[in-house]
Amino acid sequence: MSSIKGSSAETQPALPLLHWDERGLIPAVVQDATTNAVLMVGWMNADALRLTEQSGEAHFWSRSRGQLWRKGETSGNVMRVIEVRVDCDEDTLLLRVNPAGPACHTGAVSCFYRTLEEIEP
Amino acid sequence: MSSIKGSSAETQPALPLLHWDERGLIPAVVQDATTNAVLMVGWMNADALRLTEQSGEAHFWSRSRGQLWRKGETSGNVMRVIEVRVDCDEDTLLLRVNPAGPACHTGAVSCFYRTLEEIEP
Repeated sequence: MSSIKGSSAETQPALPLLHWDERGLIPAVVQDATTNAVLMVGWMNADALRLTEQSGEAHFWSRSRGQLWRKGETSGNVMRVIEVRVDCDEDTLLLRVNPAGPACHTGAVSCFYRTLEEIEP
Repeated sequence: MSSIKGSSAETQPALPLLHWDERGLIPAVVQDATTNAVLMVGWMNADALRLTEQSGEAHFWSRSRGQLWRKGETSGNVMRVIEVRVDCDEDTLLLRVNPAGPACHTGAVSCFYRTLEEIEP
């Protein structure tokens, strides 16, 4: 699937119980279902969540590029979604996934490969 | 410590490499350092992060109440912070903690105690 520009999130009534923010987005923590490592945090709009559920692969909304993206679209490191969990106040998701490769564009297994001290000594 | 109203995040130059959002906040995923369970996601401003580092216990910024809070302040379920990690683009934190009790106000170990299907059948 190539990138899909635009979003119909605001016009579709799906998933009304989730608390989307003022941009129509919800943060999604991505956790390796096997190792339990936290791999990354992405943002989803309703379309990204719908595509994730339909395809079984993680899709996000890129805030910087302003478009939907299928994780691994260019790198091949797709993420098969085992389970989508939701927090107590329904404003954050937790995706438990089987990743095909490193989650991070740097090649690191997880985007959280540094401590705060390493960047802010 | 009682709740601290107000914030000096905007006036303090600390932690310039982190990418705070337009509200001066950054999301913080909280993970149990022993079980690797994802417990919750909170939001921090610079003061919350500073208090966390100074005290060794997790502090957050409550967006609903508009004030700083020490996690466990009323419940006693404080979280001792073992490590603060940062993601590749420096806009999300990962706190690895030893929790004194359930993370969720419902009494659940984790705020992510339901699947999406359970709330949006």
